Amino acid sequence: MNGPPASIGISLESVDTPALLVDLDALDENIRRMAHAASSYGVRLRPHAKTHKSPLIALKQMAHGAVGVCCQKVGEAEAMAWGGVTDILISNEIWGRSKLERIGALARQVKIAVCVDSEPNAEDLSGVAVAYGVNLDVLVDINVIGDFRTGVQPGDPALRLASKVDGLRGLRFAGLHAYAGKAQHIRDFPTRQSVIKNAIDIAATTRGLLEREGLSCQWITGSGTGTYHLEASSGVYTELQAGSYIFMDADYGQNLAADGGPYRDFENSLFVYSTIMSRPTADSAIFDAGLKASSFDSGPPVICGLPHAEWVGGGDEHFNVRTPGATFPYALGDKVKLIPGHCDPTVNMYDWYVGFRKDRVEAIWPVAARGLNR
Amino acid sequence: MNGPPASIGISLESVDTPALLVDLDALDENIRRMAHAASSYGVRLRPHAKTHKSPLIALKQMAHGAVGVCCQKVGEAEAMAWGGVTDILISNEIWGRSKLERIGALARQVKIAVCVDSEPNAEDLSGVAVAYGVNLDVLVDINVIGDFRTGVQPGDPALRLASKVDGLRGLRFAGLHAYAGKAQHIRDFPTRQSVIKNAIDIAATTRGLLEREGLSCQWITGSGTGTYHLEASSGVYTELQAGSYIFMDADYGQNLAADGGPYRDFENSLFVYSTIMSRPTADSAIFDAGLKASSFDSGPPVICGLPHAEWVGGGDEHFNVRTPGATFPYALGDKVKLIPGHCDPTVNMYDWYVGFRKDRVEAIWPVAARGLNR
Repeated sequence: MNGPPASIGISLESVDTPALLVDLDALDENIRRMAHAASSYGVRLRPHAKTHKSPLIALKQMAHGAVGVCCQKVGEAEAMAWGGVTDILISNEIWGRSKLERIGALARQVKIAVCVDSEPNAEDLSGVAVAYGVNLDVLVDINVIGDFRTGVQPGDPALRLASKVDGLRGLRFAGLHAYAGKAQHIRDFPTRQSVIKNAIDIAATTRGLLEREGLSCQWITGSGTGTYHLEASSGVYTELQAGSYIFMDADYGQNLAADGGPYRDFENSLFVYSTIMSRPTADSAIFDAGLKASSFDSGPPVICGLPHAEWVGGGDEHFNVRTPGATFPYALGDKVKLIPGHCDPTVNMYDWYVGFRKDRVEAIWPVAARGLNR
Repeated sequence: MNGPPASIGISLESVDTPALLVDLDALDENIRRMAHAASSYGVRLRPHAKTHKSPLIALKQMAHGAVGVCCQKVGEAEAMAWGGVTDILISNEIWGRSKLERIGALARQVKIAVCVDSEPNAEDLSGVAVAYGVNLDVLVDINVIGDFRTGVQPGDPALRLASKVDGLRGLRFAGLHAYAGKAQHIRDFPTRQSVIKNAIDIAATTRGLLEREGLSCQWITGSGTGTYHLEASSGVYTELQAGSYIFMDADYGQNLAADGGPYRDFENSLFVYSTIMSRPTADSAIFDAGLKASSFDSGPPVICGLPHAEWVGGGDEHFNVRTPGATFPYALGDKVKLIPGHCDPTVNMYDWYVGFRKDRVEAIWPVAARGLNR
């Protein structure tokens, strides 16, 4: 395993590269802003820990009012529990005997809820709940966005599955998981709003159907960094599971706000710190951070202070950029902050966060759940 | 850190998912094929360890005649040395005092060579070589492909830098690094061949220029899995640094061979093992392996046996596919092998290889250099 690329108290420019930096002032501010938003709208906040994979950051969010965390994987949930988080929603379906055993065992230590979208999975969950003598809160995952994603269809299929869950030993039907993932990244606000409005209607209609059948939906969760205020103000969703807001990334940076201007509800707090290792021409540079240092699934990173530099190539260990018509403003050996294209998979490449405030390293935090994808 | 997802002797279908599988028969066959090709052409083979990040696999390659390994990062080189590899070329420029110190120290333990493309970097390398009392073989990295990548321009700039290296204490000018990275992934053979022919000409001309000035180029290295036979038969390159051939991936699977048919010089030996966790419709399925289990920079993974399944979405933990017009042939809970889009960054997400032969787990190997990007 990698040792950390820095030590407490050194200057930012002494940090070895590539390194995963967190601007602690911006992180604190983002945590406060989302906590304030949730509180203003009167909904609970359960941030997604798949973004940061750090129980330490989770506990900071909970210190500002978050009720717990969401996780996608049992391994993430275990890492959160080991780090002191006691209320966890696995916002995903979990298949396979060994993983279900771990859910049963973990539910003896901390509060665990989980999503289902099929009867066989609900039956398997019931089996481990009974075997471990625990009660699991179960959310029925409904597809609120219409593409090929997890979740049963809303309406009758959701009712059938909720009734099934309600009748199974060891399970308590708790409500609906109604997450419109792709909507988060729709650039223009009116389209984003319209997709979410539809999701809210679907969730509300399904809730009505279930409650008429005596199945109380106390818990309706979903939303993300791109649409949190829409679900929060819906009167339907009881909980937000936004995660990326603590860090932001270049992809979310392309969203537009309601006024048509850039979406700036949160600050960029996450950076890949990188050294310029080659200068092929006066207008180009190569960084020592490539596909193994910053996720490219949502596009290349953006250079801080040089948002219009043009990506011209790269590879496993290189990120090559050009500033056509202008001299590239950094020299060989200079260290520069990059905003990753997509925060979650980028964090998952690193063993350590290097937290800084102003220009001084203040925190070295393990990415405790890195690689825990089972 | 993740524990391994399997144990020796269990059946393949008992392996937990997502897992990084290696078909050991295919791996062995690929190692033999490339070793045979290099030997037939009379060139040395120094496979790139950035692909596998495993000294254990490196030693297998060396047992079949490879002279050592290439690495991109000092951390990778250290991991290889700790694992018993004694001859390492860092086929990259290394910047920063702490990394150069580590090169000096490592060169006291094993044979280390390194690339440069600037005089300041050569001077810094000389400084540590002298400080550690070692001699470093240094290759001048030349740009043989014309895009914005590392390397000085061929011809006079290369001559100037080689002369500089030759005059610096602790350094031995050893030859040229002439790697045409992008050419590896050019789909049609005639274009790929033409780009490499040009690179070979550039390397030969630069070698001639340097040798006329008394600078012997004993070592000319480059090439990759997509073009190895071209450089190998050039009479110019003395060494191949192909890496991906041991695993292959979906991206290399799109290359075409000289006869216009599919490029099938090597077998797919690397897979992401994944469970089907949701079946939204009869013709679609969702796998439990997303952006944190398989690299998407070169496209999504390909499902073994279902090469034409259509990618319809996904996210951090999901990969969503459809087989329009046909029932998706696997059921909820089934485990399926995926061929990753790009092998190197996929390997870098995992802590363990699960090696299998036929349907039985035979090896659990650490990805020793995972995350060692400094």
